[in-house]
Amino acid sequence: MSAKKAVQMSGIIAGETVIATVGKEGKGLTYRGYTIEDLAQYSTFEEVAYLLLIGRLPRSSELAALNADLKSKRGLPAGLKTILENLPASANPMEVLRTGCSALGCLEPEKTIEDQLPAALRLLACLPSMLAYWHHFATTGKRIEVETDDESIATHFLHMLHGVPPGPTIARAMDVSLILYAEHEFNASTFASRITTSTMSDMHSAICTGIGTLRGPLHGGANEKAMELIERFENADDAEAGVMAGLSRKEKFMGFGHPVYTENDPRSDIIKSWSLKISQEAGDTRLWDISERIETVMMREKKMFPNLDFFSASAYHMMGIPTAMFTPIFVLSRVSGWATHVFEQRSSGRIIRPSAEYTGPEKRAYVEIEERSA
Amino acid sequence: MSAKKAVQMSGIIAGETVIATVGKEGKGLTYRGYTIEDLAQYSTFEEVAYLLLIGRLPRSSELAALNADLKSKRGLPAGLKTILENLPASANPMEVLRTGCSALGCLEPEKTIEDQLPAALRLLACLPSMLAYWHHFATTGKRIEVETDDESIATHFLHMLHGVPPGPTIARAMDVSLILYAEHEFNASTFASRITTSTMSDMHSAICTGIGTLRGPLHGGANEKAMELIERFENADDAEAGVMAGLSRKEKFMGFGHPVYTENDPRSDIIKSWSLKISQEAGDTRLWDISERIETVMMREKKMFPNLDFFSASAYHMMGIPTAMFTPIFVLSRVSGWATHVFEQRSSGRIIRPSAEYTGPEKRAYVEIEERSA
Repeated sequence: MSAKKAVQMSGIIAGETVIATVGKEGKGLTYRGYTIEDLAQYSTFEEVAYLLLIGRLPRSSELAALNADLKSKRGLPAGLKTILENLPASANPMEVLRTGCSALGCLEPEKTIEDQLPAALRLLACLPSMLAYWHHFATTGKRIEVETDDESIATHFLHMLHGVPPGPTIARAMDVSLILYAEHEFNASTFASRITTSTMSDMHSAICTGIGTLRGPLHGGANEKAMELIERFENADDAEAGVMAGLSRKEKFMGFGHPVYTENDPRSDIIKSWSLKISQEAGDTRLWDISERIETVMMREKKMFPNLDFFSASAYHMMGIPTAMFTPIFVLSRVSGWATHVFEQRSSGRIIRPSAEYTGPEKRAYVEIEERSA
Repeated sequence: MSAKKAVQMSGIIAGETVIATVGKEGKGLTYRGYTIEDLAQYSTFEEVAYLLLIGRLPRSSELAALNADLKSKRGLPAGLKTILENLPASANPMEVLRTGCSALGCLEPEKTIEDQLPAALRLLACLPSMLAYWHHFATTGKRIEVETDDESIATHFLHMLHGVPPGPTIARAMDVSLILYAEHEFNASTFASRITTSTMSDMHSAICTGIGTLRGPLHGGANEKAMELIERFENADDAEAGVMAGLSRKEKFMGFGHPVYTENDPRSDIIKSWSLKISQEAGDTRLWDISERIETVMMREKKMFPNLDFFSASAYHMMGIPTAMFTPIFVLSRVSGWATHVFEQRSSGRIIRPSAEYTGPEKRAYVEIEERSA
């Protein structure tokens, strides 16, 4: 169950970054020097995206300009809508976002380095549109309007998803969730995006790499796996019995432990408190109670702490979000971090090309086809 | 101009592989222990794909079954054709392949680990169809038939591209080129694909990562840059003068040197001889003469040898292939290597997550929006 043993290249320094620190003292997360606690308490997600992409917190006028720009970039070109309409309801929404991002690269390519910030903002603004547009068309055949007047990315997305604007608690909970998921140093999807970038490839290729890498259950897919876990149980006692039984079978539970944090994931307590707040407002804390008991059991039995994905599951569920959209929401946020790493990797101008240890057959003579054995 | 200095993670062992060795003694390339020289001389590309994906050379009946299977997998679903028809003629063909691969993942997803080989073969068989279908539709509006009776991937592709089957020399030259491009250990695109795979993501995500990473001019895009170079010149003397002038301006020429090979790229002489053969049959060795002179000058002046990309440029051009398709052809081949690395990475079950050296700001206090400076 050790999170470390399951990690290849653990502790190997693969490059430099000025963007974020993860678990410097076994815990703690900063974006450009600001703690995640401060950002989650005082900032909006758009402020955090500005901080990441530009390198400093925006002044009021800059934030207003960013919000207006993002609002203007929500629309989808007709060709992209047609493409999304040809992706079936059975498709994994992560694959839909990957395809939509890739198609946008064909329709609105980055042409020069000056396009990199606009391209990043375009994706930040319209990936939620792609997800919601495809979701409604695939499930009901309805072509929704994606250009709304909502003030934030969080409210834009929830409005499109549910057809009505969210209440203030849910809106802010989603906003905070986007802040928490925005950036995390050299995690697998970001590192892979940097490799794509390192060949001097384009923004859309790098973001497609990020989405495809995030998709796996050992990475972004973990929030969906956490939901599957908590949904198994009726109540907290049931959860305790189930997790104890699972542990005795050496079952692995997603949403616990981390390749880098050793003491705790500072994001977990933040989303946990928001999950409670939403659950209390809804008058239904059952999933939160189950989650908290699992947290207690995992710490008591395995000394494992929840990571961001674990309490995100109950939070998203209580916001009325289908489980298959949990990891896609991670994309809507992390695109800000990936794009920032694209900028940073580009400034180094070097290709990332490690070596492998070869453990295969020695050089051997060719065998003619008639003489080959199975 | 040193190839090494331009490489991040140079020499860092990022994992194990049994698939290929690159430049073990500063030169030399083996796939599963067989030298690239033997494979290029005696095998077909399909045999090499079998060798990579299955781990040994096929017997006659196995090769026949593979060829029949690949032939049966050339068709494109209607939804995918519609998607390709919505990608404009101005799109980069690498982005088209990335989008087509991504869409195929939505339409024909891998469901279990048993699907991995069929999914890889499906991509190997139908990526050429996607490229040719989009090319003709985007440029002339014609919807071509992609299910042909051609015996090999090389002839299938050239037949679709040109509307007539290729002659034997060009067919075999393309076949050899696909062998040479098939696999190359932990190059940037393959390593990035392995990271995508390491989160337990799907085959199509991994191949999209590969395509997006290969796209950059520091990687697969180099064969197109090599073409741009040789096209600049009228003849060999002109090329010598031009390259000497470029070197004095410290211009960087793509298609020379390598992050791993130190003595030579063993693939270069093979494609060089095929480029000459095609050029002689066509009665036009001008581009080959220019290329050879540039090779001589680069060795004399900079001790730099050509890599596979350099003579591939003149070879492809003399096969009548548009320059924008050079890197896409690299994809049609390398998908065999990427998929093999997906299989291998999956068998390890570990997530690839390195660390970064943080060189950014120290932890700092939050600043209210009214108090921020630019």
